[in-house]
Amino acid sequence: MSHNNVSTVRREISIDQIRALQGREARDRSGLAFVEGVRFVAQAFRHRFCVETLVFAPALLTHPFSIALIHQQRTLGTPCIEVSSSVFESLSLSPEPQGIGAVIRQQWTPLGAARSFGHLAWIVLDTVRSPGNLGTILRTSEAVGAAGVIVLDPSVDPYHPGAVRASMAALYSLRFVRATLPEFLGWKKRNGVTIVGATPSAATDYHSFAYPRRVALYLGGERKGLSEERVALCDHTVRIPMTGKTDSLNLAIAASVLLYEVFNQRRAILGHSSLPNE
Amino acid sequence: MSHNNVSTVRREISIDQIRALQGREARDRSGLAFVEGVRFVAQAFRHRFCVETLVFAPALLTHPFSIALIHQQRTLGTPCIEVSSSVFESLSLSPEPQGIGAVIRQQWTPLGAARSFGHLAWIVLDTVRSPGNLGTILRTSEAVGAAGVIVLDPSVDPYHPGAVRASMAALYSLRFVRATLPEFLGWKKRNGVTIVGATPSAATDYHSFAYPRRVALYLGGERKGLSEERVALCDHTVRIPMTGKTDSLNLAIAASVLLYEVFNQRRAILGHSSLPNE
Repeated sequence: MSHNNVSTVRREISIDQIRALQGREARDRSGLAFVEGVRFVAQAFRHRFCVETLVFAPALLTHPFSIALIHQQRTLGTPCIEVSSSVFESLSLSPEPQGIGAVIRQQWTPLGAARSFGHLAWIVLDTVRSPGNLGTILRTSEAVGAAGVIVLDPSVDPYHPGAVRASMAALYSLRFVRATLPEFLGWKKRNGVTIVGATPSAATDYHSFAYPRRVALYLGGERKGLSEERVALCDHTVRIPMTGKTDSLNLAIAASVLLYEVFNQRRAILGHSSLPNE
Repeated sequence: MSHNNVSTVRREISIDQIRALQGREARDRSGLAFVEGVRFVAQAFRHRFCVETLVFAPALLTHPFSIALIHQQRTLGTPCIEVSSSVFESLSLSPEPQGIGAVIRQQWTPLGAARSFGHLAWIVLDTVRSPGNLGTILRTSEAVGAAGVIVLDPSVDPYHPGAVRASMAALYSLRFVRATLPEFLGWKKRNGVTIVGATPSAATDYHSFAYPRRVALYLGGERKGLSEERVALCDHTVRIPMTGKTDSLNLAIAASVLLYEVFNQRRAILGHSSLPNE
């Protein structure tokens, strides 16, 4: 990735185009996303994401680290756009913009390259409505060493600004895969992956099930969970028991409780407190 | 609770006063809160909360159950205010208002009456910034049969509209207690309660700790967790391990993972899959 060679091409992105990345259509068409805040920008570089353009508003920069980062990237030839505070605020969804953002190229792993079976699990998602829930699932997934997320429905976008923010930069460490249902089922068969669906109608308690090494945890949407049709595709289903009058958990909570169960089982087998990643 | 006797007094609340309940100051001064949506209103009655006034907009009522509920409550003498759709929308924080809401009287349990030690645990909260996180903690707490929440900092308000919404009506089943730190410590001592704090700096893994029967789970805020001073007050501290690069979990996730650990330990002891409440 030589930034210098193509910087003249990359520099052409306009403020309007960056602002448009708040919307799904522009993100899909360009394959780009806008991330903001010193943590998110620094992590993008640390994870070797392709940063197309750095955007900064000098008057908003409060972290000395931001200033050093911009100086360093300018020297390396990364295209940089200096904007006024008000322009930056128009790009930002944060109540307290930190004056630094980056246009990054989205990374998607082709299904054929989705392996990482040394990791804890794959997450499979269908119809997550809330970007905040999605981002929180990403954050926990990264914390327990999950491989990444296989997205079966185009409505789910981990590069949505709300998902990015809730992920707390976890999105850089995870693999994202888009697949149709038949493609996913082919992948599952080829790789000997066990699909475990989470649904309140399951007979098996999530805590008494022994999760196999190559496992994909399949979660439905907030409102209706996994449809009957989807449940039929699972090798096993588990339920998270509840004793109160509430009939369901928040989706990100259910995902996280499940992930920590797999995490606890796996580290009990491995005999130490944290899991090595591949 | 005879609604008839005092209905003339209760009827005096104005639309402006109801709208003001979106703000903390009016909620604190009046001891009231506004809940909206057929689920939240129906549950308020089911849990015998004192409903001061029912508010409805006929044109927005899509659930037949709402219409039956309003009719029933009118007959019983509950004060009802009929408003236009636009007035209801001005009261509502929902993107799709269901045209039914209720002014309820907040319920707080005095610390001296806070027992419920047959329940899973008490939750102790300090400085939760996000009402959504707070509401999600309430939702999981109810699901696992926790007793309720002891609030040590006045900034935490379970009757905030955002907390109410995220709680999915779980707030009606939980006990809420306000206490100063010295009062809480006195209560802990009198009742033989063990305080277990969750903090990333703890030496003990949350999954290897045996939670005692009378336990209060103490959680810090989103940004800084439990302060050193607060950690010193805990009988024990536990940490939720993470293997990724993320340095923390979302607060509601951490609370829920911890609650499910206690839940799983308790039901393993009791030898069945769900816990009886007192």
